[in-house]
Amino acid sequence: MEEVMVLSFWPSPFAMRVQIGLEEKGVRYEYQEENVMVNKSDLLLRTNPVFKKVPVLIHKGNPICESLIILQYIDEAWPTSQPFLPSDLYDHALARFWADFIDKKIFDAGSRIVRSKWDALEEAKRDMVENLEHLEGALKQMLKGGPYFGGEEFGFLDIALIPFAPWFHTHEIIGNFKLPFETRFPLLHAWVTKCMERESVQKIVPTPERFLELALQLRKKFVVD
Amino acid sequence: MEEVMVLSFWPSPFAMRVQIGLEEKGVRYEYQEENVMVNKSDLLLRTNPVFKKVPVLIHKGNPICESLIILQYIDEAWPTSQPFLPSDLYDHALARFWADFIDKKIFDAGSRIVRSKWDALEEAKRDMVENLEHLEGALKQMLKGGPYFGGEEFGFLDIALIPFAPWFHTHEIIGNFKLPFETRFPLLHAWVTKCMERESVQKIVPTPERFLELALQLRKKFVVD
Repeated sequence: MEEVMVLSFWPSPFAMRVQIGLEEKGVRYEYQEENVMVNKSDLLLRTNPVFKKVPVLIHKGNPICESLIILQYIDEAWPTSQPFLPSDLYDHALARFWADFIDKKIFDAGSRIVRSKWDALEEAKRDMVENLEHLEGALKQMLKGGPYFGGEEFGFLDIALIPFAPWFHTHEIIGNFKLPFETRFPLLHAWVTKCMERESVQKIVPTPERFLELALQLRKKFVVD
Repeated sequence: MEEVMVLSFWPSPFAMRVQIGLEEKGVRYEYQEENVMVNKSDLLLRTNPVFKKVPVLIHKGNPICESLIILQYIDEAWPTSQPFLPSDLYDHALARFWADFIDKKIFDAGSRIVRSKWDALEEAKRDMVENLEHLEGALKQMLKGGPYFGGEEFGFLDIALIPFAPWFHTHEIIGNFKLPFETRFPLLHAWVTKCMERESVQKIVPTPERFLELALQLRKKFVVD
């Protein structure tokens, strides 16, 4: 068995990407839970001294940080006939562009919904809908008749986005609104359903209820009424 | 001649990366200046509808956005015997990690120096020194006896960082301090000198004085005394 270890924290969509990637490649790994809200282990501080965040992948003693960089590393370190990233240069650039968009926009709007009230909450909700609109457009451009971003194969962008899906339920409850998946984002709606059936996703991604419970605890602690 | 076009704005370190990359590959391209502080062209809004920012590379009609994604695209679209990105998987991940660090930390601290006063300015100055300390450590790890990140060849991380170098003079003048290159960052100091001798860099990167002039104008306009 190769030395592969993942430092993770269960609600982190970024950490889930790494685990889904390893599951898809059939790589066995040691898992270390890092409850970064309470404590950071010496191993985490030593392997990610710059950002001090999960996920970290440690492979053959080398630490690799930042989930999208880790995911590309996994793709190349354990090559298969169907790589996560498309071989076509432009499709490759598009996949990386939209993954970066998820990091910058989906995570940000989601975090603001969880920790905001009143006007800031309304703005975060509007931003989330606008972001999903962009993703619906991207999916339309990239499906190519298949069920996934990029077509027939579950790949880089699917893995980058799917860990955020169970958070949407939390956003709806806290924001007291409904994300218009069925009416305005039918492609995303079908895509989430399809990805959720996947073995790696079922194994790694917790149920929406667990995220809601955590988010409500966080609001109680940090969002003053 | 291939159809290659760059939408750029001269003080943008991100846009300079794209131009340096094309110069290094010997690719001829059409240049369109976008003074994004005043106006955004229809072409920019159409080719980067999500972020509405420079740089955009348009190649064979396909728009590519986000400078690091563009740089990797350039590396692969015009392959040479010395690619920008290292072929070793771990070195490749490290190069991308530190490029991402520059985007997140160097740009942020620099912007805060330009637009802040008093305590916020002092904090931004401390952050910039700490960031450069991280980069000095990274350079030490990656030089491998050569003058550049990654060793003998001018590559991805060199191109990602060098456009920020002429901004340091502006940070020093506005912050009324001296970045301790000679005493604490000797490797970075030698690296900047070496990169600045390079033809592509000399051609694309403006003199420090032009950045200072722009920054002082911006402060006059936006930073209230």
